[in-house]
Amino acid sequence: MPAPDPARRSERSRLAVLRATRELVTEVGYAGLSIEAIAARAGVGKQTIYRWWRSKGAVVFDAILALSEGSEGAVTLPDTGDIEADLKVVLRATVAEFADPAFEAPIRALNLEIASDPELAAEYRKRLAAPVDEAKKARLRSAQQAGQIRADADLDLALELLYAPLYQRWLLRSAPLTPEYADALVEHVLRALRP
Amino acid sequence: MPAPDPARRSERSRLAVLRATRELVTEVGYAGLSIEAIAARAGVGKQTIYRWWRSKGAVVFDAILALSEGSEGAVTLPDTGDIEADLKVVLRATVAEFADPAFEAPIRALNLEIASDPELAAEYRKRLAAPVDEAKKARLRSAQQAGQIRADADLDLALELLYAPLYQRWLLRSAPLTPEYADALVEHVLRALRP
Repeated sequence: MPAPDPARRSERSRLAVLRATRELVTEVGYAGLSIEAIAARAGVGKQTIYRWWRSKGAVVFDAILALSEGSEGAVTLPDTGDIEADLKVVLRATVAEFADPAFEAPIRALNLEIASDPELAAEYRKRLAAPVDEAKKARLRSAQQAGQIRADADLDLALELLYAPLYQRWLLRSAPLTPEYADALVEHVLRALRP
Repeated sequence: MPAPDPARRSERSRLAVLRATRELVTEVGYAGLSIEAIAARAGVGKQTIYRWWRSKGAVVFDAILALSEGSEGAVTLPDTGDIEADLKVVLRATVAEFADPAFEAPIRALNLEIASDPELAAEYRKRLAAPVDEAKKARLRSAQQAGQIRADADLDLALELLYAPLYQRWLLRSAPLTPEYADALVEHVLRALRP
């Protein structure tokens, strides 16, 4: 009979805390979220949470990161050879994610934290945004090699033109996010980037 | 000798509260801001504030609106006949505003409130964003008439392409905001909009 495995039990607790955090932030929002409620939902003591995370923001941050952990190192964009079709697939998927309450509530909470905490913003860029942006730029580079995007295009600016309008609409709820909007965005931005 | 004027005294108190709110949000941030501190700084009672505003968010909101009150009804963009030059002037000015702590701290606090409160977001759109967007679109329309922008361009999307990348950089502090960045943004977006 194997000895009890503290590392495995600890990992189970960690995952339970992250899951409880995502559920609660969806149900009660970031402002209504408390370490007490997370501990109760996860079935761990408050001290367990404080041992691993320095703040509520830090727990929410890791809870979001864990959402994409399965795909870690494997972020790639579709490459059918047609940059316009591929970007439309990707931006339509982003629109659908933002329409999903289970996804959008924790992401909104994370964005509010990042916007008010420069240190967290830097960590977010390094751990989450930079690798994803790299994957997106790799797809734009392959479009450059195929002559579909200008060789001297600024790919960082290209990414911002593609994603920032969608992000702003979502964050400020300024207008509806639809698949047609995703398509129009891709068409406009590609017009700016074509040779 | 004129009788004391309660309306004038009341307006003085209101302006003092709004000024105190802007100062404090700049000094201590939105999270650190309290109605008590605003009342003390403005030299009014807490009850005076609660009589006029339903929440801290509502006071901050009006404090920001008051910033642009002097120019109300007079929002117009420069029109020299050269849309590229005019947009560069406007976007460089926006970059400079975001670099000014006295301006950026209350605007950041307001944006966090809007992002977490759909009702406030709707009020913000109606009272502040919509009139300003109308003024910006009027300038784009005059560029359309001058043949510098396609007649069938989607002007709402055009505004988002111009402003959202800048907004996102500022909000998430993801990269530096410079005059050169403002210029590059205008050049890229106009390439997407030209006939």
